[in-house]
Amino acid sequence: MEPFSRTVDLATGKISGASNHWVRHLSEMRDMYQDQGAVAEILRAGDPLIYEVYEIAVPEEEGQLIQCVTIIHPGRVGSEYYMTKGHYHKKRDRAEVYLCLSGQGYLLLQTEEGASQAMELEPGTAAYVPPHWAHRTVNVGDRPLVFYGVYPADAGHDYEAIEEQHGFSLMVCERGGRPALEKNPHFKRR
Amino acid sequence: MEPFSRTVDLATGKISGASNHWVRHLSEMRDMYQDQGAVAEILRAGDPLIYEVYEIAVPEEEGQLIQCVTIIHPGRVGSEYYMTKGHYHKKRDRAEVYLCLSGQGYLLLQTEEGASQAMELEPGTAAYVPPHWAHRTVNVGDRPLVFYGVYPADAGHDYEAIEEQHGFSLMVCERGGRPALEKNPHFKRR
Repeated sequence: MEPFSRTVDLATGKISGASNHWVRHLSEMRDMYQDQGAVAEILRAGDPLIYEVYEIAVPEEEGQLIQCVTIIHPGRVGSEYYMTKGHYHKKRDRAEVYLCLSGQGYLLLQTEEGASQAMELEPGTAAYVPPHWAHRTVNVGDRPLVFYGVYPADAGHDYEAIEEQHGFSLMVCERGGRPALEKNPHFKRR
Repeated sequence: MEPFSRTVDLATGKISGASNHWVRHLSEMRDMYQDQGAVAEILRAGDPLIYEVYEIAVPEEEGQLIQCVTIIHPGRVGSEYYMTKGHYHKKRDRAEVYLCLSGQGYLLLQTEEGASQAMELEPGTAAYVPPHWAHRTVNVGDRPLVFYGVYPADAGHDYEAIEEQHGFSLMVCERGGRPALEKNPHFKRR
């Protein structure tokens, strides 16, 4: 395999020549927000882009690494801030790292054994998602939250486990103009 | 294992709370530069800092990822620009990724089968070092070259193979005020 490079726009997060550019609109994750009345009302007027991911793909083999940049746009669904779907890795023992490039946010984490954590993200934060921790990111600022991420190419994604649990145990909501961590009332422990 | 974060100064590359901070002075890599007269002359006046690495360590296990920031200072030894020692991974099938944060440089790569490549680094370059490729970085600018790197925690480092080969097959020298790629006259194919 030959070496190669791509160019990340460090201001916007866009990758020139990315292998994939995934976009996630509200309609694709409508069940993930708590306030279903707010979801319905927003979707009557349009289908906003919540987040996008530029991926630099390589063979999904042990020893290879996938790079991506995630851009979460600013906004809320009811009081809940825009966020990613979140996932476990299919191979549960694969870690992930993030380097936050711009914006303000939270990284929500949880294990199948019931542990949960929230970590603030700001420019320069190097966050470690250890093996076995599901991870979701949330934009609590008024500009895009942009971060570069790396994970083992054989990790895989498991979104279903999160859906079965009705999301993450923690959620990030706007209260009095500031982000507040709250317990997800519908969360199901495994 | 619990999630954690550290803070990278995106301008300077320094990591607050890094597990390790390695520094490499000229005396520690004196044999790696071609112009041994220039090495001796510089060392008579002092022992300049060539590069430093801030590392965020985790258990050296399959599935975990090591993050580091490398800062190569600007300068030359004779006509050859300041550079890192360079290495293969002990586990040859482990890749590495770099995100260049500031400065101007080159990434030199080679395989044990005799292939070699050079890749330019500038802010935003996301470089892929595939499995089996040795890698060295070179600062050709007049400011520090700073890049964030990630590699599998079980990769290990093999510096000896590079020393046995008398370095990399390519070298980067200043010619007429600009960087030029040249063949290393002492390079030994394996």
